[in-house]
Amino acid sequence: MDNDRSRVDSRRQFLKRGAVAALATGFLSKRSLMVTGQGQQTPGSPQQIKLPPLNAPTERQRKEPPVSLPPEKRIGYAAVGIGHLALEEVIPAFGASNKAKLVALVSGSPDKARQVAMQHGVKPANIYNYQNYDRLADNPEVQAVYIALPNSMHAEYTIRAARAGKHILCEKPMATSVGDCEKMIEAGERAKKWLMIAYRIQYQPHNRLARDYVRKKQFGEVKYIEAINGQRQGDPTQWRLDRARAGGGSLVDLGIYCLNTTRFLLGEEPIEVSASIYSPPNDPRFRSVEDLVSFELRFPSGVLSSNASSYDAHDAKRYRIYATEGWFGLEPAFPYNGIEMQTARADGNIERVEHPRLDSTNQFAVELDHLAECIIQNRRPFTPGEEGLQDQRLMEAIYESARTHRAIRLEPTSKLDAFRGAEPASE
Amino acid sequence: MDNDRSRVDSRRQFLKRGAVAALATGFLSKRSLMVTGQGQQTPGSPQQIKLPPLNAPTERQRKEPPVSLPPEKRIGYAAVGIGHLALEEVIPAFGASNKAKLVALVSGSPDKARQVAMQHGVKPANIYNYQNYDRLADNPEVQAVYIALPNSMHAEYTIRAARAGKHILCEKPMATSVGDCEKMIEAGERAKKWLMIAYRIQYQPHNRLARDYVRKKQFGEVKYIEAINGQRQGDPTQWRLDRARAGGGSLVDLGIYCLNTTRFLLGEEPIEVSASIYSPPNDPRFRSVEDLVSFELRFPSGVLSSNASSYDAHDAKRYRIYATEGWFGLEPAFPYNGIEMQTARADGNIERVEHPRLDSTNQFAVELDHLAECIIQNRRPFTPGEEGLQDQRLMEAIYESARTHRAIRLEPTSKLDAFRGAEPASE
Amino acid sequence: MDNDRSRVDSRRQFLKRGAVAALATGFLSKRSLMVTGQGQQTPGSPQQIKLPPLNAPTERQRKEPPVSLPPEKRIGYAAVGIGHLALEEVIPAFGASNKAKLVALVSGSPDKARQVAMQHGVKPANIYNYQNYDRLADNPEVQAVYIALPNSMHAEYTIRAARAGKHILCEKPMATSVGDCEKMIEAGERAKKWLMIAYRIQYQPHNRLARDYVRKKQFGEVKYIEAINGQRQGDPTQWRLDRARAGGGSLVDLGIYCLNTTRFLLGEEPIEVSASIYSPPNDPRFRSVEDLVSFELRFPSGVLSSNASSYDAHDAKRYRIYATEGWFGLEPAFPYNGIEMQTARADGNIERVEHPRLDSTNQFAVELDHLAECIIQNRRPFTPGEEGLQDQRLMEAIYESARTHRAIRLEPTSKLDAFRGAEPASE
Amino acid sequence: MDNDRSRVDSRRQFLKRGAVAALATGFLSKRSLMVTGQGQQTPGSPQQIKLPPLNAPTERQRKEPPVSLPPEKRIGYAAVGIGHLALEEVIPAFGASNKAKLVALVSGSPDKARQVAMQHGVKPANIYNYQNYDRLADNPEVQAVYIALPNSMHAEYTIRAARAGKHILCEKPMATSVGDCEKMIEAGERAKKWLMIAYRIQYQPHNRLARDYVRKKQFGEVKYIEAINGQRQGDPTQWRLDRARAGGGSLVDLGIYCLNTTRFLLGEEPIEVSASIYSPPNDPRFRSVEDLVSFELRFPSGVLSSNASSYDAHDAKRYRIYATEGWFGLEPAFPYNGIEMQTARADGNIERVEHPRLDSTNQFAVELDHLAECIIQNRRPFTPGEEGLQDQRLMEAIYESARTHRAIRLEPTSKLDAFRGAEPASE
Repeated sequence: MDNDRSRVDSRRQFLKRGAVAALATGFLSKRSLMVTGQGQQTPGSPQQIKLPPLNAPTERQRKEPPVSLPPEKRIGYAAVGIGHLALEEVIPAFGASNKAKLVALVSGSPDKARQVAMQHGVKPANIYNYQNYDRLADNPEVQAVYIALPNSMHAEYTIRAARAGKHILCEKPMATSVGDCEKMIEAGERAKKWLMIAYRIQYQPHNRLARDYVRKKQFGEVKYIEAINGQRQGDPTQWRLDRARAGGGSLVDLGIYCLNTTRFLLGEEPIEVSASIYSPPNDPRFRSVEDLVSFELRFPSGVLSSNASSYDAHDAKRYRIYATEGWFGLEPAFPYNGIEMQTARADGNIERVEHPRLDSTNQFAVELDHLAECIIQNRRPFTPGEEGLQDQRLMEAIYESARTHRAIRLEPTSKLDAFRGAEPASE
Repeated sequence: MDNDRSRVDSRRQFLKRGAVAALATGFLSKRSLMVTGQGQQTPGSPQQIKLPPLNAPTERQRKEPPVSLPPEKRIGYAAVGIGHLALEEVIPAFGASNKAKLVALVSGSPDKARQVAMQHGVKPANIYNYQNYDRLADNPEVQAVYIALPNSMHAEYTIRAARAGKHILCEKPMATSVGDCEKMIEAGERAKKWLMIAYRIQYQPHNRLARDYVRKKQFGEVKYIEAINGQRQGDPTQWRLDRARAGGGSLVDLGIYCLNTTRFLLGEEPIEVSASIYSPPNDPRFRSVEDLVSFELRFPSGVLSSNASSYDAHDAKRYRIYATEGWFGLEPAFPYNGIEMQTARADGNIERVEHPRLDSTNQFAVELDHLAECIIQNRRPFTPGEEGLQDQRLMEAIYESARTHRAIRLEPTSKLDAFRGAEPASE
Repeated sequence: MDNDRSRVDSRRQFLKRGAVAALATGFLSKRSLMVTGQGQQTPGSPQQIKLPPLNAPTERQRKEPPVSLPPEKRIGYAAVGIGHLALEEVIPAFGASNKAKLVALVSGSPDKARQVAMQHGVKPANIYNYQNYDRLADNPEVQAVYIALPNSMHAEYTIRAARAGKHILCEKPMATSVGDCEKMIEAGERAKKWLMIAYRIQYQPHNRLARDYVRKKQFGEVKYIEAINGQRQGDPTQWRLDRARAGGGSLVDLGIYCLNTTRFLLGEEPIEVSASIYSPPNDPRFRSVEDLVSFELRFPSGVLSSNASSYDAHDAKRYRIYATEGWFGLEPAFPYNGIEMQTARADGNIERVEHPRLDSTNQFAVELDHLAECIIQNRRPFTPGEEGLQDQRLMEAIYESARTHRAIRLEPTSKLDAFRGAEPASE
Repeated sequence: MDNDRSRVDSRRQFLKRGAVAALATGFLSKRSLMVTGQGQQTPGSPQQIKLPPLNAPTERQRKEPPVSLPPEKRIGYAAVGIGHLALEEVIPAFGASNKAKLVALVSGSPDKARQVAMQHGVKPANIYNYQNYDRLADNPEVQAVYIALPNSMHAEYTIRAARAGKHILCEKPMATSVGDCEKMIEAGERAKKWLMIAYRIQYQPHNRLARDYVRKKQFGEVKYIEAINGQRQGDPTQWRLDRARAGGGSLVDLGIYCLNTTRFLLGEEPIEVSASIYSPPNDPRFRSVEDLVSFELRFPSGVLSSNASSYDAHDAKRYRIYATEGWFGLEPAFPYNGIEMQTARADGNIERVEHPRLDSTNQFAVELDHLAECIIQNRRPFTPGEEGLQDQRLMEAIYESARTHRAIRLEPTSKLDAFRGAEPASE
């Protein structure tokens, strides 16, 4: 709440009579006395609004309110595809974004598109379909597209967006073949537009903290990682269960989280994969795509990781990192919200099992804002097309191992974070 | 993701060859075959967009995407006071609202107001100060105000808003005296404008589920409730630590959550209160307001509840309801996000301790939307001024008991939910 | 497992070729090289058997195996009363004791006593009844009695045991009146026998760790404590529901845990109590004793504590201590096994909620062993009769407050742990 | 506590005036009125002592106190090897056993053996060493041996025990080769003595409940199991790190828990294994044995399971079973105490994550009692030598797969629980 009218006087009085005592007792942190310099302000550019902290320094520290770009300076996006993900997650996320705005829709369902446009303030003129999609080139309000289409359509709509002069935020999996991934990267480069793969986990605070723990050896050396991503599919007619549109089954949709996150955590690239697959016979959901995939990765440092994905197991999205001096992990690790961390280490005769709580963010808004920042600052996204291509290569090796019942060796990559761009702004 | 282009064909094929099998195996729920009737659509009014469910019926069910009012039809709010709460919670919540929008600001700090207006797309002409506040009467874009000022200012700014013809969403505590509360209610009635007190907990899903468990005797008869709300204050100069501006200490700011939520859970009103207070001597934070308040409530049904608030205890916000056949509660119960539920009951030789996970909402957006709905539908808010007045009466009895070291009897109220309006739309 | 035959050689070899490397890498702790001196051994007295630690120093440290007294040197106990507690907890606990043994039984049911004696190796000659109880005086095998009788019988059987020259371990509550408590203390003093009240919580590792956290201000200054002990009684004919035999209802049986443990944690004695009682009308269980008791204690340091006991609430046994820099507590806190600890404190932008795991003990065996040690070393027990008397005084004040609806002031006690004896041997 | 003197009268009175009311309100369960028939009692044989239940039927139900054999009728054991496991777990467990007693020791350290014998009441004449071990044949007090020696010694001391006419409880792993396992089984058969492998997990309540959930499809069909057993070894000179004495590294000591428990849960036998191994170079602990083993099992039903063991990862012992309608598992799963269960399933829009609490047992006492029962009733143990042999076969396949980087096919076994004996008495 605000105390604009009365704070200044009270503060002045206090500083006369009580500040020394307060500082001495520690209730007043240095920061609360800080003068918030608004002198350096560039006219028209948004500034951090500083407020004195209210809580004692022994309380959990909260971030300051985010700086938002004025609406007219935010990056305009077209949402390409308005199915479940777009309607339930991506479009609502614009309300939590500070640097992006929804300005156009692309859909094959004109009625649905009109409804969505009306509810979200998109001009009727900015509704496109898959035929006139390339006319985005003529719409300067649209600077970027968010592609949330069936996997087999990612390549085409990414390449057409690049040709239309738009930056691209493309859902995972990037595409359905290594060849398509390579063409998408090439299209972005040719158009000098950024291509970012929507690996939201790499931008999520709990997952980023887990990565820090790995990299700083907070719990010693990592030895073993286990990860799983399962959810039970219903409707056998959905595109995810059709190989032609999905490119694969649970691996490309769910297992990719285990694969991509393990690579993100370690920064290393696997040198060996082995895998097994099981799909229940005579199940209408598994006519063309696989159900259960279990795959193991061996990393140059000696870390082994066991991963699983399933389209027939009850919702389960977690991982844990076992290290020499403790373990840590997330459960759930991959949902859109509600992610939680767990850690353990010994302390004398006590085993300290901990649930560190930290603030989360809207995962889709953070992605929208990251690409917006990259566009504004002309920086390579943290998860560019190369990151998606590497997962595609590895998924193909996983399928091969399952087919041949033997381990597949992979070319070593010596550099850490070999396929990633610049780190996102500190969250 | 979207499969606009390809779903129809695939679905048709499937229905020929596989639907019977799929239904038989249970993977296809009845709902997934439902025809989503868009025929009844009033032109121009937003409709629920229906999508076929993807997951098996054994998975957790998710709500459909919310229906948003078109921006031009949303209720316009002025934020009155732009301190911590407004900047960190209320203003960002407009991005998650479906029926409200931020259109004006009221502040005594013109520089800060300009920054906030710029970042959130508020027109410069819609910035007001405490002197010209009454001119809101002339601004039809503003239909409601959200009052987030020091407690002692709630009455004045509520009454002036009512006079200016605006609906009011006022932060808790409603005011600093029973007399002020009564004047605020009268002002609203006279102006025929709704006055809602921002008891966000009464709109929050976990808390509402706990209430359902109480009312439906899901764990038997309630016997005892314990509740606490503590956080450790720092800066001794903040208005919350100044009786003139705050009206009281931890009780009116934090203990009110325990009080209000217990009343909400039971629907009953207390018939006896007893209380104890302790404030550490020589602490610059507790010159004019109290630190620790412990208070007990006796309800007509025989339920006893023990509650505590403190401005010097580490962050703790929880309650638990002990009933004849189990216990249930929330921890944390009152923060802006991250609320979690716990329950326990016996099952043969097993004690089932459970952490039921359910989706939460943006608590401030839900309040903004509830008042917006009440305005649109001309309904009395669920937490009207009378609800705030009752808490004020009870807090005065609590202070009296602490002063006199004896229990204070209160007039019985026979009706359940005696001071509440119509239930909010099912969350 | 044992490697008697082969360890010595291997160790010798290792010390030649590898010890330096092992110490350098930290895998070999200094303790593992320690020579375990068995030279100082008094012939016939049991010694700690030392084994080299196997795990890395980063793993949780375990205690060495306990030293047991040879059976013929253990203190012989008579179990007085063989109902639920004796059969389910006390008698089995002798198997986990290192210094005590069961040598006699006292019961009014000769058939049951014969069964128990047979199953637990008690000589038929050592079975007593309530009439010939005083003949224990003639049985030198019996050095102590464990009194597990209805509360109203505690005083008589304690006094008769003291007169028979036996040390006494008496269940809580000590008796049903202050007068009886005083007579019991006097009887012990006159006979120069130790009287210990079976406050098992004061010997239990998790509870003792919580006390250390309080005393060492591990989470800052304590502000507020909440505690509850409830369980739902069935059979209305049991002695616990008969005032004549029990002396009171849920307070004396369950609430005493909250009361005694809070006093133990703080070391202080309350200066004010206030209380409320509710018993459901027309319930056959509550004809003579109370159901729900809620009571608050005020301590000289300013700490307030809210406590509750109920005979009609589902099993709930927990407490939590709210302090300036964190909170900590046990849930469950009071059962015979399965006690767990929870703590929380802030660390930057993380709230660290922790579940520290530590080894527990058989709570009854530890009590049996503590009195045995006191007998052997001629020391005053940690929880002597005076500790039980103080709880009785406070429970009488609690009942008075509930009757009069006002707070009851109590004489201040300046000394910490005013009623306790020497600390038990480090567990 | 006991109310021998007063219960009968009170009960009689109650039955006149109040039993109907009590039964009507449900506080009195039928069982509390049950007449406990002691008429069928064989003279001298121990009987269940029945006590009326005290708690309401809505409370968690507790087992009745166990029936103990009179000391003179219990099975006498010799503890073979008195290292860590024997001193810290096995020998103390006799105090919690109802059918077994410690009567002899076998050790290569005469001083240590004398200490242990003195502390635990073992006659000096019943101390043996590895040379005169065969003389056990002449000691009728010893009916069984508990072998807790380095793995490489299991075969010899099992075979010598069988020849001496003793039943055998042998620690896992059963031996260090398939050939040795076969010889041990043959020796038991020839001597007509029972050979039981100490797979304590198969007798532990939480693990048995998990098995029931699998077999009864409580959470639907099992899809995938993940299991890990890690602990960080210190002293590089311990026998566990010497292949000659241990027969292998983390797999045979820790991974065997994952392997054996997964087989136990499913009842099936694997048809394919694949595995990877990593040991840090230049670590004095891993000169002759392996550190990290990751292995996958494929079962005939289609279940895949991923398992890991490590001697260099911080303490971690858990498993989880992912099924079509939920998941369930134990964490920790394998320690000597403190085992806990977790489950999850959806219920409408709620995900119910549960921590079912159930009483545990002393795991070693239950094993001692199971073999004692098998001896008394002449039944085959639930985990006979064949169960240990099967694990040995599978561990050899795991090592082979790791060596060859390919999956190893195994002979299918059609029968469920193919290698197990009769179920232990209901726990």
